[in-house]
This record gives sequence, structure tokens and C-alpha cells, in this order.
Amino acid sequence: MTTIHIEKHSANPGTAPSEETQNVRQRLLKSAIKLFGEKGYAATSVNEIVSAAGVTKPNLYYYFTNKEGIYITILSEALTGYDEIFNRASQAQGSARQRLMEICIEVYQQFVRNIDTSRMIYSVYFGPHQSAPPFDFETFRMRHIQLLHDLILYGISIKEFRAGDPHIMTLAVLGQCHTAMELELCHSGPTLGQEGLTKVLELLFESFAINRTAITEE
Amino acid sequence: MTTIHIEKHSANPGTAPSEETQNVRQRLLKSAIKLFGEKGYAATSVNEIVSAAGVTKPNLYYYFTNKEGIYITILSEALTGYDEIFNRASQAQGSARQRLMEICIEVYQQFVRNIDTSRMIYSVYFGPHQSAPPFDFETFRMRHIQLLHDLILYGISIKEFRAGDPHIMTLAVLGQCHTAMELELCHSGPTLGQEGLTKVLELLFESFAINRTAITEE
Repeated sequence: MTTIHIEKHSANPGTAPSEETQNVRQRLLKSAIKLFGEKGYAATSVNEIVSAAGVTKPNLYYYFTNKEGIYITILSEALTGYDEIFNRASQAQGSARQRLMEICIEVYQQFVRNIDTSRMIYSVYFGPHQSAPPFDFETFRMRHIQLLHDLILYGISIKEFRAGDPHIMTLAVLGQCHTAMELELCHSGPTLGQEGLTKVLELLFESFAINRTAITEE
Repeated sequence: MTTIHIEKHSANPGTAPSEETQNVRQRLLKSAIKLFGEKGYAATSVNEIVSAAGVTKPNLYYYFTNKEGIYITILSEALTGYDEIFNRASQAQGSARQRLMEICIEVYQQFVRNIDTSRMIYSVYFGPHQSAPPFDFETFRMRHIQLLHDLILYGISIKEFRAGDPHIMTLAVLGQCHTAMELELCHSGPTLGQEGLTKVLELLFESFAINRTAITEE
């Protein structure tokens, strides 16, 4: 019965999704992201999601099976976006400093471009246990850390960076990325923005460098 | 009627609180911190708090008036602890670098010592709106930022630090504090610890310094 309702939305079943079906799916994702972020997973109902999206319930069941399905889809698609950045970064050319800068800026841009999803991820990760379905954030976090760590080790191996503690250097870089991102989630006060993130990373990379560059402004 | 229950717990009414009344108050705070952090403010009932504390309901009403009262007390006491650190820090002597390091380490220690409260604060701040009573986190955040900023300006004025952008330098320091603290809240992966925080700050301060110190380990 569910599919009968849905077929109405798909003008050409069996072919590429029409613009309208794409829109329905996107509208559902957008509503769910906002509601999960604002109210939490448990407090959000399927009715609220479909109503906010302006579509009928069977659409949600068709595209995502159930509330858990749309939740997992949101998180998986978000982390896939970051994984693509990590994949490109691990193939990229250039100095360790350039490559670290690029990956940090791209991660920051992805976070800001999808700020509602980012807010939802923080809400799920740091918020109260919401009897939300389990989701493996940790594999993703560890992949990010590992990539930064490998780039720092590479920088040390080619004598671009001095031989510091790669674990500390990695967490220092990660910290500046996270700070720039979190300041976007705060309710007031200064943010760093992309330009600020570039500057704090430049400060940090200067201390990694074997040869200090002259950036004193005096 | 409420007070009748309470007087039983106070062996010497009118004198300093006995050890038992102190314990009752502390037990209530501890249970509420855990429950608000795990379930959120709205989902936690007064019954659950008193039951977890092993005390009767009138005790909660006596010490905190209601659920809102215990919630506001927890947050106020936590932020008062940080305010004391900021007050001491603004009076302290020493180089800008030493003073920045001391304040960061003290804030980190306070955060870890009260890890359940810290978890609750993150849960409230980043978690879903929980129809929790409003609480002014922003004044506190701005005070922390202002203090770091003043110390950095001081460092620049005495030519201990080079003339960089004090806004960027401030957020870079703040970022490393926050990272060390947040890694304590994460569910897995590397943490920095106090020693790691000291090291990332040293990395950063090195790039602030007019004269780079020789800490290359090669």
C-alpha cells in the first residue's frame, strides 16, 4: 500500500529520479535534520518530519523505511562527505603544511556548508542519551586523526617539520579545526571564520617548521 | 510541612550546617548532575533526582526550591569555580606566557575534576533545546576570552610576544584549552591530558615569542 502512494511522485519509475522525487527526499532530510537538532531524536516524531517537509508519511517510509532510517541516512551522508575530503587529501601533492592546511579548510567548509547537520551531530554526540540508534562516530574521528598524523610524520620525514611529538602536533592541528567549527555553533561571541582558521593554523605551522619564517609584523 | 521533614536532618538548627545536611545537599547535586547530563533537563523528574540521591522530596524543595533551582545552582556553582580562576589569574604575576599557561591548566583541571558537570554543560549547550530554564553562558565565555586577550596584549606590549593579531592569538589559545577538555568527553581515541595540553600550548607560545627558543629535538 505504501508504494502505491509513492508511485504518484515518481513520473518515470525505473529511470533516473525526477526532479520532484529528488526534492521530496531532500525536503524530508532537511526537516529531519532541523528537528533532530532542535528537539533531539527521541522527541521528534515521523508526523512532525513529514509535516515540516510538506509531504505525506508514505514518502518517508519509501525513501527511508522509518525514523531510524532517515536518521542513519543523515549521519552517513554527512560522514561520507568528510570521507571524500580525506580520500582526496590522502592522494594530494604538495608540502605537508599545504596539505594539512587544505584538509583543515575543506573540513571547515563542509561543516559550515551543512551547519544544520553539524549542529545535529554535536547535539547527538554531546547531548543527552536520546535512545537514538547507535552510530559509529569513532571510526570516522579516528580516520581524521590518522590522516593528520600521517601528514605530520611525512612532514617530519622530509625535514619540513622539526622532530616533535607527532601525537601532540596532530591534536594541536585538530584542535584548531574543531575550534573554528565550534565557534560557528556558539550563540554569540567572536568566530574565526575561514580566514581566522587559516591564520591560527599558520601560527601553529610556524612552530612546526624547521626554519622559522619571518612573519613578525613589527 | 516541608520544613518539618527537613529539621530531622539538621541536628543543630541555627548553627553551621551539620555534616549530614552538607551530605544531603551534595548528594542531591550529584544525582541531578548525572541525570541532567544523561537524560536532559526536561526528561529528568524530581522523583528521579531524590531517588538517586537516596533522600526524600522535601529535601530537594528545602535546598533548591524546585527542579529549576537545582539546575541553576549546578550551573552557577560550576561557573563560579571558573570565575575564581579568572580572578586569581587577572591578579597573578609573571610573564604573559606563564600566566596564560597557568590559567589554561587551571581551567582544564577544574573541567576534569568536575567531569560530570562538564558533560552536563556540554549537553545543555550543544544538545537539543530542552525547555530548560535559560542560563547565561555567554557572559562567562566572553569573560574567559577577554582575559586571554588582555594577557596577550600585555605580552605584546612588553615585547614578550611579537605583534600579531591578538584576536587570532586569543582564539588559538582558547582552542587548545577547549580541545584538551573536549577530548576528555569523547568516547574513545587519544586524549591530551594535562601534560599534552602543556605541550600544545608550548608549541603555540613558541610561535608567539619574539625570540624562538631552541626546542628542536633533532
